[in-house]
Amino acid sequence: MRQYLKQDEWRIIEEGFSPDHHKASESIFSLGNGQMGQRANFEEAWSGPTLQGSYVAGVYYPDKTRVGWWKNGYPEYFAKVLNAPNWIGIDVNIDGETLDLFKADKVEDFRRILDMRSGVLSRSFRVTLKNGNTLSVKSERFLSMTRNETGVVKYSVTPEKDCKIIFSPYIDGDVENEDSNYDEKFWNILKTDVDEGKGSLLSQTKKSDFQVAFAMETEISGIDNFDIQTVKNETFAGNHITIKADKNQTITLIKYVGVCSSLNHKPEELTAAAKKQASEARLLGFKTLLEEQKQHWENIWNLGDIKIKGDVAAQQGIRFNIFHLNQTYTGEDERLNVGPKGFTGEKYGGTTYWDTEAYGIPFFLMTAPQKVVRNLLVYRYKHLQKAIENAEKLGFTNGAALYPMVTINGEECHNEWEITFEEIHRNGAIAFAIYNYIRHTGDIKYLSEYGLEVLIGIARFWSQRATFSHDKKKFVILGVTGPNEYENNVNNNWYTNKIAQWCLNYAREAIDIVRRNHPERFDEITEKVNLDTATETSVWKSVATNLHLPYSKDQEVFLQQDGYLDKEQITADELSPSVRPINQHWSWDRILRSCFIKQADTLQGIYLFEEEFDTETIRRNFAFYEPRTVHESSLSPCVHNILAARIGNLDKAYQMYLRTSRLDIDDYNHEVHEGLHITSMAGTWMSIVEGFGGKRVYKDGKLRLSPIIPGQWKEYAFKIRFHEKNLEVKVTQEEVEICSHADEKISLILYGNEISLAPGKSIKEPINVNYHA
Amino acid sequence: MRQYLKQDEWRIIEEGFSPDHHKASESIFSLGNGQMGQRANFEEAWSGPTLQGSYVAGVYYPDKTRVGWWKNGYPEYFAKVLNAPNWIGIDVNIDGETLDLFKADKVEDFRRILDMRSGVLSRSFRVTLKNGNTLSVKSERFLSMTRNETGVVKYSVTPEKDCKIIFSPYIDGDVENEDSNYDEKFWNILKTDVDEGKGSLLSQTKKSDFQVAFAMETEISGIDNFDIQTVKNETFAGNHITIKADKNQTITLIKYVGVCSSLNHKPEELTAAAKKQASEARLLGFKTLLEEQKQHWENIWNLGDIKIKGDVAAQQGIRFNIFHLNQTYTGEDERLNVGPKGFTGEKYGGTTYWDTEAYGIPFFLMTAPQKVVRNLLVYRYKHLQKAIENAEKLGFTNGAALYPMVTINGEECHNEWEITFEEIHRNGAIAFAIYNYIRHTGDIKYLSEYGLEVLIGIARFWSQRATFSHDKKKFVILGVTGPNEYENNVNNNWYTNKIAQWCLNYAREAIDIVRRNHPERFDEITEKVNLDTATETSVWKSVATNLHLPYSKDQEVFLQQDGYLDKEQITADELSPSVRPINQHWSWDRILRSCFIKQADTLQGIYLFEEEFDTETIRRNFAFYEPRTVHESSLSPCVHNILAARIGNLDKAYQMYLRTSRLDIDDYNHEVHEGLHITSMAGTWMSIVEGFGGKRVYKDGKLRLSPIIPGQWKEYAFKIRFHEKNLEVKVTQEEVEICSHADEKISLILYGNEISLAPGKSIKEPINVNYHA
Repeated sequence: MRQYLKQDEWRIIEEGFSPDHHKASESIFSLGNGQMGQRANFEEAWSGPTLQGSYVAGVYYPDKTRVGWWKNGYPEYFAKVLNAPNWIGIDVNIDGETLDLFKADKVEDFRRILDMRSGVLSRSFRVTLKNGNTLSVKSERFLSMTRNETGVVKYSVTPEKDCKIIFSPYIDGDVENEDSNYDEKFWNILKTDVDEGKGSLLSQTKKSDFQVAFAMETEISGIDNFDIQTVKNETFAGNHITIKADKNQTITLIKYVGVCSSLNHKPEELTAAAKKQASEARLLGFKTLLEEQKQHWENIWNLGDIKIKGDVAAQQGIRFNIFHLNQTYTGEDERLNVGPKGFTGEKYGGTTYWDTEAYGIPFFLMTAPQKVVRNLLVYRYKHLQKAIENAEKLGFTNGAALYPMVTINGEECHNEWEITFEEIHRNGAIAFAIYNYIRHTGDIKYLSEYGLEVLIGIARFWSQRATFSHDKKKFVILGVTGPNEYENNVNNNWYTNKIAQWCLNYAREAIDIVRRNHPERFDEITEKVNLDTATETSVWKSVATNLHLPYSKDQEVFLQQDGYLDKEQITADELSPSVRPINQHWSWDRILRSCFIKQADTLQGIYLFEEEFDTETIRRNFAFYEPRTVHESSLSPCVHNILAARIGNLDKAYQMYLRTSRLDIDDYNHEVHEGLHITSMAGTWMSIVEGFGGKRVYKDGKLRLSPIIPGQWKEYAFKIRFHEKNLEVKVTQEEVEICSHADEKISLILYGNEISLAPGKSIKEPINVNYHA
Repeated sequence: MRQYLKQDEWRIIEEGFSPDHHKASESIFSLGNGQMGQRANFEEAWSGPTLQGSYVAGVYYPDKTRVGWWKNGYPEYFAKVLNAPNWIGIDVNIDGETLDLFKADKVEDFRRILDMRSGVLSRSFRVTLKNGNTLSVKSERFLSMTRNETGVVKYSVTPEKDCKIIFSPYIDGDVENEDSNYDEKFWNILKTDVDEGKGSLLSQTKKSDFQVAFAMETEISGIDNFDIQTVKNETFAGNHITIKADKNQTITLIKYVGVCSSLNHKPEELTAAAKKQASEARLLGFKTLLEEQKQHWENIWNLGDIKIKGDVAAQQGIRFNIFHLNQTYTGEDERLNVGPKGFTGEKYGGTTYWDTEAYGIPFFLMTAPQKVVRNLLVYRYKHLQKAIENAEKLGFTNGAALYPMVTINGEECHNEWEITFEEIHRNGAIAFAIYNYIRHTGDIKYLSEYGLEVLIGIARFWSQRATFSHDKKKFVILGVTGPNEYENNVNNNWYTNKIAQWCLNYAREAIDIVRRNHPERFDEITEKVNLDTATETSVWKSVATNLHLPYSKDQEVFLQQDGYLDKEQITADELSPSVRPINQHWSWDRILRSCFIKQADTLQGIYLFEEEFDTETIRRNFAFYEPRTVHESSLSPCVHNILAARIGNLDKAYQMYLRTSRLDIDDYNHEVHEGLHITSMAGTWMSIVEGFGGKRVYKDGKLRLSPIIPGQWKEYAFKIRFHEKNLEVKVTQEEVEICSHADEKISLILYGNEISLAPGKSIKEPINVNYHA
């Protein structure tokens, strides 16, 4: 943990200058608008530690795989999120010395603020240069949510004595990825162009041939006389703006930037489109754009804010998560997905993990229009053929589909055998998301349109992947990695077997539904996928029915995998803090042979299939597994929060809530400098709504709530959307209030009792903290 | 399998020109002399597929580790065997066209011969160039075994019409390793120097700062008038020798080369030393050097030949193995070891694997002076501190030692977690080699001098690595890879547990021996290694006594690991030939979850501890495991041969013999182009002597023989050395003859009966093929 930021309900605040915190802050103060993103790199020169990060949604590069030892089946190339040309840059030169906080004599009053209410990043400081000049500097920037191809930077300098200032706003295409496998650069720069107060650059990714154009227009205020020189080379377009400034005179440069990609424009029109964005932005002016931005965010917060009273850290945490989720993915573009680092870092490559289905979809199902989740499901449908090819590489046949661990374009982007080939439970999450969507929306038609084909491919995979053990007289699934990546190549991971079993059964159910409701479409599908319905479903049934699910009679818990109890059973609180996180201190084999669990695994299965288990079963498994869990995956605390709340363990639920919501702000796992954990932010939202709020939708498709409240809070309130109707839930220590913002009647189950709310009405009930206990 | 070479008792013969075979032949026809080695690259230009390989013993480069995903504990760098400057090169130009068989119009009568009796590689062919010239070419070369810093090439050209020939003999330092992790070149060339008929080059490895000097002198015969020009640049030293040749005139160039490394000379004297070698060689002349070479090899064969009558393929196979073993390691230099590819390829890096202890030492124990094996053991003793540091990296304490998987200098040279961190049984082989040496030699003093410290470090490792399972009420060893690398991260690998148990017991025994025989030295050691004798040995005893050794009551076999019987039980003969070897056709996960075994694993343990098991136990385990074994490790067939012979399965033993002895010649595993399997060649020798010959030395230290003979053979004969006394064993279908070549009495046990042989005497007994059956 590292706590250097101030707590505030609406803002993230860093006070005081510390180069050691800079890379972490670059992540935490990142901006995005769904189409592009930008780490909080400085506009002016910075020679200290940094991860330069400017990202354009959907633009990737197929980087040649790098491994120590090649294994059959590895992908030759995989898609990487790209650091794109730098469009925020403004070099500042004072009497011949470049402003660079890392080299300056003294930096005072440094303050960096991310205002989450408006999506604006600002920074101010007073700096004394080596040449004795002292300046006050302020900068503000935002990526317009309204105009998602526009970014704006406002940069002001006030010198304390007369001096010559040269501002050099620029666009620079000479950039690289820190994680490039072979130190290659990923961009060709096709064209640069400059004019007084203007510049543009057209870039192209190597191999994948995405094109992105950048254009800037600049505006100077605070002085009338200045000299502009243009400067360009093959990868750079900029201006030098020379100003003679008087002492205490504030000179302001505003840089309006357009960023347009070939995903949204014809290549030949890109530069013109970017120039248009920059020029329109300049005509509207900074103030108007900022007003739009504030308005846009106000709408988002009105729909999606979660309020917590009496606990600033908790309030800041949840807003930070909601803010970044909304910056990363707006649900408007079905070609995009939610990368684990969003627009805040390079790590992991690819954009699409099981995170999307397991964490993103539960969030979007309750906060966004139905089509957003449908788009996310169709995204996987479009990758089905690639998933079939992927499974063929591993020896599967007959249309069995194994979705990749990580992908942008349907192809696998990962290359560790123990993950890539063995972390196959992802297939389960993708099937479960279809079911989850349907139980939340009732959109059963989705099955015949897209869902069934995916479910058949996945069922075929599981039925082939399970083999019969003559020793156990059961089907077994050998050689897997479960959600807990601190075990590799294990046999009969309970979670994997459980979800495989569920997939096999649900595919049969889906077949029945489609056959019954859309017989013609059913025939079309069976012909397309060459399904021998009777034979195949009977195999699926047999495998599902006879699948081994390890259980310890002694401990009365589901066993994470065969042999788990052979391990030395120690708990995480017996570990010295000096070895935490263990993945940064222990060798890999030591982690593997320890009993320590990275993230919910057996408990993840109990979370997904909670309906099937009584409270005592959940309590016993939680009591066994949670103490062995080190939560070194960002996806862990939220599930534990929800189950802790489910069994009435409010203290643990609160502890897990803080951990998930402030994971990045407080840098629990010493890695925030690499980027934020965007997908797990949906888990934070789930912690409030499913954890404390007790929201559930079971197989019957009904909305359930059973709120409880941590002792630390006076009140909390969240908004949800169910069957396109909006609800607000307020919880105090005494009562629960549910308000309908819908224009139709809403039915739901509160603490087990059906209630119904007339349009615009609300209902109050006393809180029942013992409902589950 | 690929059979393109002619069978011959003393020679390897390739007839007919095939670029497709060239890389394989480059490996098979490799030469070496213990201090350097050379793949069978062509002297003249060759633009076809090739792996250039020139190696100098003990010279390595620390190549920066390359991985896809870094795991804690990986070494930052590891030592690689280096492709050294090319000293064989002779470019040939005929009327302006470079001789290059890959580009020539026609190649006829191509013949390449490795004469194993003399260690000479020769080649002859008739070639028609694009410019219409036709030539006959002959080359001969050898690396002098007598003068191990000298190599010689004799190269003759006979044109069929008058032409201008330019010979360009050279030394070229602009070389690279095919397996360089970052396409770096590993050599600095410090100096090049040329004179008429001479050239030299001084090279230095980057980072590791080994220096190697190369010097050549050339000699032309068949013509008196020629013109010499010198040519050099920063990395190249050569001559252009221009000759006007008449048709049918044979022009011969002889190149004498000295190669001297800083392992054996002061750096400042290197170039002079290499020049001296070249010049002395030239003064002696090709004929004299060749005579020396033949004499040297005659002595080797007199001591170590194995004769097989009636089976040319088998005869060629065993000689090929003996030849390469002798080329690779002479046992004279205690700093060297036996790399798995010797001097025939780059693959694997490092030079020292458990191969040395498990395969090399049994061979050298019976063929070489006692000091050779002692040197190999001391080599590991010198790495003990590094092994302790290696174990510390993985979390072990108190002087626990884990020897590296692969090493040159004591540091780990491998980086796959499943091997590097988990294939820990290597520690067992290193301890067992000490025991093996002592039971063969009676040199119990070795324990107090060096052995005990190693055994304590290893016992400490095992006692910490085993943990107590409350579930099994036994000690367990979790998360290992056994000798069968087609299983990773398994629990309770029988072989590993068995050898761990043995190590713990033997360390206690060794303590008793040293304490009893050398009490002062014992006190010295306990103080040095801080041994709390009573406490530690009681823990070792407890772990060894209560260690889980998996067993199947159902199958009545030792179980390779926990859960092995959960796998689909298919046998290798059910696999289609099109998927063999499976490691080239199946994805890694598929291999892992299959029941297929790469190499002897449970059977390897039975081989090591054979004394403990009755014939029926061995037979049952063999019958269970061998059909599941795909023998895709070169180390597999020999152990299976020995056990098949042990249980009287002569057909299987013969099949395995052919596979081990002709593994490279017939390219069973489609990989000979990468280099030869040098260490497994000792296994081939073991197949004859321990397999068919039934040679054993059990704990009582007595030599046992119980020969049998395959039906395909008329007779075979081998020589062994025991307690520094030489014996010859001849076996026919009817009888066994044992001849003493010693000057002292020899005692041994033949078919269970003690016999004793007076100096120089022999004894004949009828063969007893049913002795074990």
